[in-house]
Amino acid sequence: MLLDETPLFEPSLLQDLDCSSDNVTFSPLISPSRPGEGLVLRPLCMADFKRGFFKVLSELTQTGDVTEEQFAKKFEHMKATGDYYVVVVEDTNLGQIVATATLIIEHKFIHSCAKRGRVEEVVVSDECRGKQLGKLLVSTLTLLSKKLNCYKITLECAPKNVAFYQKFGYGASDEAYMQRRFFD
Amino acid sequence: MLLDETPLFEPSLLQDLDCSSDNVTFSPLISPSRPGEGLVLRPLCMADFKRGFFKVLSELTQTGDVTEEQFAKKFEHMKATGDYYVVVVEDTNLGQIVATATLIIEHKFIHSCAKRGRVEEVVVSDECRGKQLGKLLVSTLTLLSKKLNCYKITLECAPKNVAFYQKFGYGASDEAYMQRRFFD
Repeated sequence: MLLDETPLFEPSLLQDLDCSSDNVTFSPLISPSRPGEGLVLRPLCMADFKRGFFKVLSELTQTGDVTEEQFAKKFEHMKATGDYYVVVVEDTNLGQIVATATLIIEHKFIHSCAKRGRVEEVVVSDECRGKQLGKLLVSTLTLLSKKLNCYKITLECAPKNVAFYQKFGYGASDEAYMQRRFFD
Repeated sequence: MLLDETPLFEPSLLQDLDCSSDNVTFSPLISPSRPGEGLVLRPLCMADFKRGFFKVLSELTQTGDVTEEQFAKKFEHMKATGDYYVVVVEDTNLGQIVATATLIIEHKFIHSCAKRGRVEEVVVSDECRGKQLGKLLVSTLTLLSKKLNCYKITLECAPKNVAFYQKFGYGASDEAYMQRRFFD
């Protein structure tokens, strides 16, 4: 199987996002096109399977043992829908993924057949903390959802992270968030 | 434009769901294949645009003025992804939609490339309250998500509806639900 460099979505979508336009400050200044020395922020590609993409995800939650075939099949489905924006930060010296976050576009009939964004799987590897990468990723995906004409964007987070997300203009909703789990 | 009867998803998926298997009781007994006298529960089709589908949605929230073309385009996209399960209840005497609910499948790399379900847009028209249709719809979509191998299913609801969803095995999550709204 060829796990190639084809991006999950059009990379130029990330190029003209101005994170500093959104009341979020970076010090030192970084941006999607300049995420820091030796780092690149870009769409996920299949070759990232061999660059430790799942190792980073495993710092967030259980990932299980995923084969190349399973990964490729999931990637192809996401790409075909056009609604999955999985962003990664690669340490280009090491050739390793060090952070990732996902924006999913959910389609609606309500609000004039609107689109809604969902932020999922935000994770920065332990060794790359302190580089503002979490902030950069959330800022990037929030601006991207606006650019894609979502009427709103939502996420679920641990209570300790509420203040972090408030920086990007998110507010705690009055709605209750409920779940039923079938298996782990 | 031909707004035809092609279902959004395979109707047989709804036929063998046993809602009474899931600790939810119906009195009188109804089921996805027998939702009540003069009623049919089935996947959304394009022709439902002319059967008051948006009128029912407007009892939930703003729907805007949607043209046939906008509706058809959104429907086609949902159908192409294979991840949208919009269910409707039709009053066959009136030829009108009286209730609807949506299950969306969200794809993950985590949890062994799992799928997760989301329940959205649950609404029963005012004149059809008291027929257990909300209960039937939520029960149906919850069982369907399990059948489709989702590892979990989630939803957001008004605090006053928490007890209702607990009947179907949903629990209030420890996570905070946050949103940022760009426009109405």
